[in-house]
Amino acid sequence: MNNGVPPFEGVSAWFAGPKAENGDAFAHLVSRIVHDHYAWRRNYFPEDGFVVDSHLRRASEPFADQFDDRLWELLARLKADPPFQSPRYAAHMVSEQTLPSIAGYFAAMLYNPNNVTAESAPVTVRLELEAAAMIAQMMGYDETAWAHLTSGGTVANLEALWVARSVKYLPFALRQARSRLGLPTHAALAQGDDLFGLSPTAILGALADTWADAEERWGAQKGYKRVAKALWSSRFNPASQGTAQVIRALGSRPRLFVPETYHYCFTKCMDVLGLGTRSLHAVPVDRHFRMDVGALAEALDATRAAGDHVLAVVAVAGTTEEGAIDPVDGIVALRNEREAEGLGSFWLHVDAAYGGYLRTMILPERIGLGEPTTESRIAGRSVSLPLSLPDQGACDALGATGHADSVTVDPHKLGFIPYPAGAICFKSPWVKAVARQDAPYLEDDPDKPRAGEQSIGVYVLEGSKPGAAAAGVWLSHSLIALDASQHGRMLRDQVRAACEFHALLEAYPREVECKVRAHVLCPPGSNIVCYLFAPAEGGMPLKAINRFNRRIHQAFDAGPGSDQRVFDRRFFVSRTTLSAERCGPSAVGGLLERLGATPQDYAESGVFLMRSVMMSPWYELAKQRGRFFVAELVEALYGEAERALG
Amino acid sequence: MNNGVPPFEGVSAWFAGPKAENGDAFAHLVSRIVHDHYAWRRNYFPEDGFVVDSHLRRASEPFADQFDDRLWELLARLKADPPFQSPRYAAHMVSEQTLPSIAGYFAAMLYNPNNVTAESAPVTVRLELEAAAMIAQMMGYDETAWAHLTSGGTVANLEALWVARSVKYLPFALRQARSRLGLPTHAALAQGDDLFGLSPTAILGALADTWADAEERWGAQKGYKRVAKALWSSRFNPASQGTAQVIRALGSRPRLFVPETYHYCFTKCMDVLGLGTRSLHAVPVDRHFRMDVGALAEALDATRAAGDHVLAVVAVAGTTEEGAIDPVDGIVALRNEREAEGLGSFWLHVDAAYGGYLRTMILPERIGLGEPTTESRIAGRSVSLPLSLPDQGACDALGATGHADSVTVDPHKLGFIPYPAGAICFKSPWVKAVARQDAPYLEDDPDKPRAGEQSIGVYVLEGSKPGAAAAGVWLSHSLIALDASQHGRMLRDQVRAACEFHALLEAYPREVECKVRAHVLCPPGSNIVCYLFAPAEGGMPLKAINRFNRRIHQAFDAGPGSDQRVFDRRFFVSRTTLSAERCGPSAVGGLLERLGATPQDYAESGVFLMRSVMMSPWYELAKQRGRFFVAELVEALYGEAERALG
Repeated sequence: MNNGVPPFEGVSAWFAGPKAENGDAFAHLVSRIVHDHYAWRRNYFPEDGFVVDSHLRRASEPFADQFDDRLWELLARLKADPPFQSPRYAAHMVSEQTLPSIAGYFAAMLYNPNNVTAESAPVTVRLELEAAAMIAQMMGYDETAWAHLTSGGTVANLEALWVARSVKYLPFALRQARSRLGLPTHAALAQGDDLFGLSPTAILGALADTWADAEERWGAQKGYKRVAKALWSSRFNPASQGTAQVIRALGSRPRLFVPETYHYCFTKCMDVLGLGTRSLHAVPVDRHFRMDVGALAEALDATRAAGDHVLAVVAVAGTTEEGAIDPVDGIVALRNEREAEGLGSFWLHVDAAYGGYLRTMILPERIGLGEPTTESRIAGRSVSLPLSLPDQGACDALGATGHADSVTVDPHKLGFIPYPAGAICFKSPWVKAVARQDAPYLEDDPDKPRAGEQSIGVYVLEGSKPGAAAAGVWLSHSLIALDASQHGRMLRDQVRAACEFHALLEAYPREVECKVRAHVLCPPGSNIVCYLFAPAEGGMPLKAINRFNRRIHQAFDAGPGSDQRVFDRRFFVSRTTLSAERCGPSAVGGLLERLGATPQDYAESGVFLMRSVMMSPWYELAKQRGRFFVAELVEALYGEAERALG
Repeated sequence: MNNGVPPFEGVSAWFAGPKAENGDAFAHLVSRIVHDHYAWRRNYFPEDGFVVDSHLRRASEPFADQFDDRLWELLARLKADPPFQSPRYAAHMVSEQTLPSIAGYFAAMLYNPNNVTAESAPVTVRLELEAAAMIAQMMGYDETAWAHLTSGGTVANLEALWVARSVKYLPFALRQARSRLGLPTHAALAQGDDLFGLSPTAILGALADTWADAEERWGAQKGYKRVAKALWSSRFNPASQGTAQVIRALGSRPRLFVPETYHYCFTKCMDVLGLGTRSLHAVPVDRHFRMDVGALAEALDATRAAGDHVLAVVAVAGTTEEGAIDPVDGIVALRNEREAEGLGSFWLHVDAAYGGYLRTMILPERIGLGEPTTESRIAGRSVSLPLSLPDQGACDALGATGHADSVTVDPHKLGFIPYPAGAICFKSPWVKAVARQDAPYLEDDPDKPRAGEQSIGVYVLEGSKPGAAAAGVWLSHSLIALDASQHGRMLRDQVRAACEFHALLEAYPREVECKVRAHVLCPPGSNIVCYLFAPAEGGMPLKAINRFNRRIHQAFDAGPGSDQRVFDRRFFVSRTTLSAERCGPSAVGGLLERLGATPQDYAESGVFLMRSVMMSPWYELAKQRGRFFVAELVEALYGEAERALG
């Protein structure tokens, strides 16, 4: 049963366990946290005495009784939640959370710090910066990067595009500001009219130079104020003027490039930012659902030819549907080429909300993913399965994220941290000067806007935020190394489980006689598999195949509308629908051929797919103990498919 | 000592207590929560057996040891947090959290639901909608309102303005869409050219009518799709076209009106939304720091005369600096007048992030605030203090919030819920149709966009979000009634404490000989007091007064830069700076006169103020037990001021 790759035993201590095997030990820690906090309370001016004395405690018994009743009610209701912790749950991107992250969150929650300012969170602001720095370094940035936590990936992506927009038009505003302030022309801002093509590095460098020039001439405080004022009043500053004014003044329209597989938050971002979803351009993906870099190059050429400009290019590392990783390395190479050829640079944002932590598999170097075949048992027979392990391409892509200008990563996804924990990392700390807001009660001295301060609130999109989230991320990442020796080994096992799931779905009908067969959308780009079932003999129209799979899915659905109680459900899988409006027929061409469907069929009804995120940390250890849950899920799916057909 | 108003004993059971008086009982509940969750884990397919057996548990001892060490380290570091729970903390807007909210958060966190979709949160999505409905009803909305939780007030305000922007231009897009679809002209959309002046109610009504017309002609699904497509392709739709295109097409510029006391997140919102901070217009406030409705009317007239249009008017209920409540009732009356006179309506947003819960003081009717004088002891002498209780004006303003189109409320402020817990409430559920996004994996059937669904993710700005926050708010608000009998009584005592603090600061030098005296910025609008000290004999220039108060403040500072350990600090107050760029000299005129300062002095150096948010639930009960912390704080402040002067 063991396929030669020893499972990573480390995980056994990181989580509570599917049967709460570590529950007693953790309950002990929770109790320690509570009593330690309360003892702290009693140690602050103990001579103040007690406010709530026995008389008041007795008087409040009716409330305590109601609290008791309501809490039991809540605990009862919560039991209808899906068992994310079980290896039987292979549905959405949620699983166990690390025990340190829960302990850290809970400990800080009792103090309830607000990380908007160090005054209301002297401890956790520091922990947030430390934790975010670990994440930034995981993504390939050095210690000068500016990174902080967010409530989630959507806000992180919005913040990245907000900053990218400000940086995009900064050269025009800077040129105007320098001229008004009587500062000499800056080399980077003098290249004729191609300020649209400047690289983010060159732009932020010009900003830094302008500050230095102003500081030299007027001193630090006055210099900063003059530059800030001149920038604010420039007609090219979207923050003060609005995009309508700036775009009119420049006579060129912005374009955002995303892969067809983009998360729906990017349309939301373009809407919110006032740039309009029409300015979002979806670049075709290949049959592995990775952005086609050639198509991106053509789109960039067309944008240039039309007199428009590039707001940013977004690469996705770990698409939410397929787990695919865009060729970040290829996009970086393209950018280098275009810079060298004078075709214009662009802001590169990597949306690694889902897949950012996969990078731990290549730190400090690529972890072995095991043999390309695995031996397994299906329906009682031992079979050899070819594994389509993530190829060198995915590793190269992950290796290049340090060249991006910004990266979104969600600790509350593959970081195994409780919600809410997103993160945004910027390569250059100078974006702080671009994003900075002044709040009268947050900082004493508005004349210190330089990078390196221990402050968060004035540089970010959000306001009040839980210091508890920072403590959770910090404690977990301090204990579980974000490299191939620990976190990466766990993820490797999950990628392996996805590959096995893929191979088993395809191999099953060769081993067991059955009237249906599974078709996988594409080999797993990481640890997600999308698949559907069709009659083995073929001939079913796509519309009917969709209905058929919806019926199968009902037996594995965790949704609130399903008629079965959660505890009666043996396995959970989620589902998605690919539509021609989102993903062109080229990506799904292979699947359509196998189904005997035409692009026309696809355009009419889309493709309904079941989707399994293989995020359980338990597959390999369970296998070692004789339970091959991945194979059991495959059997259950085939069984249900046959029933649904019959 | 007791001033005739019996303190509200109910609070004694709601919180852990400054000395964790209820700590043992709560530790018991936490233990129950942990064991109950873990028992649930063991009850899901118990026949699966254990993955983490004793062998693995033994092997993981090194990790457990490291976990232990690191957790002790975290617990030690957290002890440098300020003691928010103590009545000695009168600084930022943070205090105790209710025990039910902590219990609810923690219980759900162990299940870790993600409220982006009911599939990953079948229980807590429902709890979020229930909790948000309680908040919406607290703010005066009926059960048809659309309300949900957010990560905080900034995101809530951003979402409100995002929706307001979409609604603002909807009449133009709707008129075009109806014409393209061959639907008859709609009465509300035919009034010549004043589509800018339509009320939000009329606009959303026209949207509802258009859907009904389309449903009648083409059936529900096709009808919806046609309307959605026609709206999307309209050149007046900012979501698809971007604001630059829409504003150019309309030839009129948007203006946002806020009081001078606006939270800094509104400049951030205008920047993010691409409308530019220049489009934010700050309306002067009076000496109580409440928006001057006459000045608003003039500004609206000027906007109209200039051919610009009103994006929205924001009223603040509970400014973050002063706790002032804008005259929402007056603004509603102004809107009614202007609608009647054909001068144009507007979207009214109430930023009640801080003060929303103050409305519980008037539900179902205004709670008595106690006698307008209170008897107290200062420096050993019994004195009678005149209280400037919040006047009828504040109550009338709070009474009118139900007429606003949207309201932001933060449960993590005066709701006494842990971070993160914000909320946004919309009067009309039809905004869901405006905000709706399509995500391939969130909803099975994109053809059901109607109000009333049990879904959240596709209608909101954020994506993944903690179901735990919903459980915390729900459990707390289920137990503590959001009216004058419970929550409102507690807040009343805090407002009373602020009034006493104000009165004591002013009265102190009459009772005790001292060389300094306090000057209060304005009578407390709710439970916040801003104040400074100056030599009793006068004559100190404003700049020196600011330096003097910064020195005093250092002794009460909770910031990480202060040299004293937190436990050695007897009292905590925060500080703020009023600047002429934000607040015109009219609002601070009274204070300047008392200080002998000129508007010119103010323009040059601003006014540094100490700021105390009297958010402790313990003042009244402690007083009953012989400790008058408010008076002790006043004495400590005067003592420090005299030292700083000497």
